Amino acid sequence: MNFKKLILNKIENNREVIGIVGLGYVGLPLAVNFAEAGVSVIGFDKSVEKVDMINNGENYIGDIRDAVLKDVVDKVKLEATTDFSKMQECDALIICVPTPLDKFRKPDMSYIESACIDIGKNMSAGTFISLESTTYPTTTEDFMLPILEKESGLKHGDDFWLAYSPERVDPGNKNYHTRNTPKVMGALTEDGMEIGEAIYTKAIDHIHKVSSPRIAEMVKILENTYRLVNISLINELALLAGKMKINIWEVIEAAKTKPFGFQAFYPGPGIGGHCIPLDPFYLEHIAKKYDFDLSMIHAAGHIDMRMPHYMYIKIATALNRHKKPVNGSKILFLGVAYKPNIDDPRESPALEIMDITAHKGGIVSYSDPYIPHVKTNDGIKYNSIELTKENLKNADVVVLTTNHKDFDADFIKKHSGLIVDLRNMIKEGGENIYKL
Amino acid sequence: MNFKKLILNKIENNREVIGIVGLGYVGLPLAVNFAEAGVSVIGFDKSVEKVDMINNGENYIGDIRDAVLKDVVDKVKLEATTDFSKMQECDALIICVPTPLDKFRKPDMSYIESACIDIGKNMSAGTFISLESTTYPTTTEDFMLPILEKESGLKHGDDFWLAYSPERVDPGNKNYHTRNTPKVMGALTEDGMEIGEAIYTKAIDHIHKVSSPRIAEMVKILENTYRLVNISLINELALLAGKMKINIWEVIEAAKTKPFGFQAFYPGPGIGGHCIPLDPFYLEHIAKKYDFDLSMIHAAGHIDMRMPHYMYIKIATALNRHKKPVNGSKILFLGVAYKPNIDDPRESPALEIMDITAHKGGIVSYSDPYIPHVKTNDGIKYNSIELTKENLKNADVVVLTTNHKDFDADFIKKHSGLIVDLRNMIKEGGENIYKL
Repeated sequence: MNFKKLILNKIENNREVIGIVGLGYVGLPLAVNFAEAGVSVIGFDKSVEKVDMINNGENYIGDIRDAVLKDVVDKVKLEATTDFSKMQECDALIICVPTPLDKFRKPDMSYIESACIDIGKNMSAGTFISLESTTYPTTTEDFMLPILEKESGLKHGDDFWLAYSPERVDPGNKNYHTRNTPKVMGALTEDGMEIGEAIYTKAIDHIHKVSSPRIAEMVKILENTYRLVNISLINELALLAGKMKINIWEVIEAAKTKPFGFQAFYPGPGIGGHCIPLDPFYLEHIAKKYDFDLSMIHAAGHIDMRMPHYMYIKIATALNRHKKPVNGSKILFLGVAYKPNIDDPRESPALEIMDITAHKGGIVSYSDPYIPHVKTNDGIKYNSIELTKENLKNADVVVLTTNHKDFDADFIKKHSGLIVDLRNMIKEGGENIYKL
Repeated sequence: MNFKKLILNKIENNREVIGIVGLGYVGLPLAVNFAEAGVSVIGFDKSVEKVDMINNGENYIGDIRDAVLKDVVDKVKLEATTDFSKMQECDALIICVPTPLDKFRKPDMSYIESACIDIGKNMSAGTFISLESTTYPTTTEDFMLPILEKESGLKHGDDFWLAYSPERVDPGNKNYHTRNTPKVMGALTEDGMEIGEAIYTKAIDHIHKVSSPRIAEMVKILENTYRLVNISLINELALLAGKMKINIWEVIEAAKTKPFGFQAFYPGPGIGGHCIPLDPFYLEHIAKKYDFDLSMIHAAGHIDMRMPHYMYIKIATALNRHKKPVNGSKILFLGVAYKPNIDDPRESPALEIMDITAHKGGIVSYSDPYIPHVKTNDGIKYNSIELTKENLKNADVVVLTTNHKDFDADFIKKHSGLIVDLRNMIKEGGENIYKL
């Protein structure tokens, strides 16, 4: 039997079934895009809660419109399951699982490993497999391939095909979504590339093919390393500028008038989210194997790790000028999302600053219209309080940690006694406003 | 007498005289732009050769059209002189002198200092002074102002005005020139800003005003630090990619398909030119005064300084694979300009690689259609040889150091026995081609 001919024939006749493994902010939008295009999709996740929500047509991802999800579920183009044996019904399996760092900032490959074991045990011969999770170069070839062959007893190239195609999801981006963001893909074989392109083309407008999975793996790391390094650079320059009485925000606005060779990045209390603070350290990890020290990533990571501490010092300094100690002062944080207008507090520097402040005796509270409850890294649970005159007045210091569009700078300025603005939200300075 | 009213009146009636101090790649184009706009310009330079050339209508700057220079000289809108006493005839003096690093990579402020002494001794009351040279924040206020007041006996604010407005000249840029590149300016007083804007507006389309000279100083450093850091980052990643058998050029092309949040930089044998390898270290210098360590710039500088050595190792490795030592081998470098299609070899990494290679016994030659003669950092003089079949064949290794458009990659590939391509000029690989 010619598996390649079979799968290409199925794709051509819209009879292929796509399995998406991991139904988070990457997997679910991708699943919905395939289903919208008329492809039958099975979503796999270990979370019963997520699976039930999807099967009830309930959406939990900000970038998906509720009606679209409901529609594809109603039409039975998308179903979700915790039963991984259903992977045998799939012609393609696309892995969209997390790749976090462990407590020692080393890659935690357990999600990819687990997905590969599940797939290896359950897939049928003739399946196309693609990894979308960010990871270090060589993962697809050296880490995934042996597990898949071992668990399945199948042979790559003859019985299945493996590719790497990194997600480029930017939560909250109004212009670029899953479909219209060009997608890089590298497969281990030419057949794999041909099949992968045929599959993805239904959900993605443009596929950019590269010559190997490790090229594609490096592409994603380069993109996010670029961001980590530049945010860290501007954070470091912001700290110096503060000492030199230079308003870094005015500097950036002026630098932006250069019509070539410059891209603006903005300082902040630290780097959050599930990609930029993590991905470059996957590369740093594999570099060690090649006796190579990535000094730029290392320096950037150093700055990034320290930013919440510097921000705590800013808060303590502001309070001190008003003859108040942190210990016993009421400190209200505005925003715990890692970036504006989204509901994701992962890796948010605000949480770490809250922990440091609470640890020093500060009486911490927060307000975030997108995130009603939060648990910090230290395991402390908070409920969001309302952004009212009284709550602002009641705080010894109000710390602006996320520039949500819902936050009214004039209102905050008017009713707060003392403000530490880490996001340049209060454009006109004032006696009681301390800026990053 | 109201100096401000006087100068604004002169500007309005096109009777102002602008003095440009330093007639290099920044000063001369600026002088020509003012003169083209009908303003009378006196150019000051200590080089008799430059002054004579200009007064004879002879151009020596690539970005100026010969006919335009000749025209403004013929019309007596631009004259050049080594006689600094003529500064007293000027209503504005714009300083465009070099700000290099000394042998210990510390700022060499002697050109600015010298210009300030000349101006202080010669200027009339009622003069507007602007510095365009890149320098560390606080230079205008803390370094220049005291010299100018002391040498002139005049008082800033009453008798003269001082501003900082960084040049943004990008040699060889086809789209952005002196006139259409927005210009940032920060003056010490509001009067200075008003006068400066009135003056510059005749030569520059858009002036972006900032609140102080130190903001403007920081703007320029930020722009070039951004470039240094990103080039260093990609150079470091290129070195790792080489070890991992990853083609970094293919990675960058793929990353460029990301339609948001990415700007491509390319690796190379090191960072050249008179700005990017130098400017950030002006900031590093002043940062020490604030007990501040700029780790990103430091790491970038470290990579940058080492690149020529790594490139030498690439050359030695390529020769070694062909069972040849560097010692006694004929090594032909193609391109000594620091970037393509210009005639400027300043800080060019090619020169340093040539020195290292010659020092190890290599028989070094070079070919560069833009630069007929060159002197390396070690003081060795070379003449460019022609790029012929024979010269390519005759070399044990041909090293591609600058991607001039004049270099024909197919021709080079066809006639060279062994190539080390540091600029991705040979797109299709081959047995005897070693790439960065």
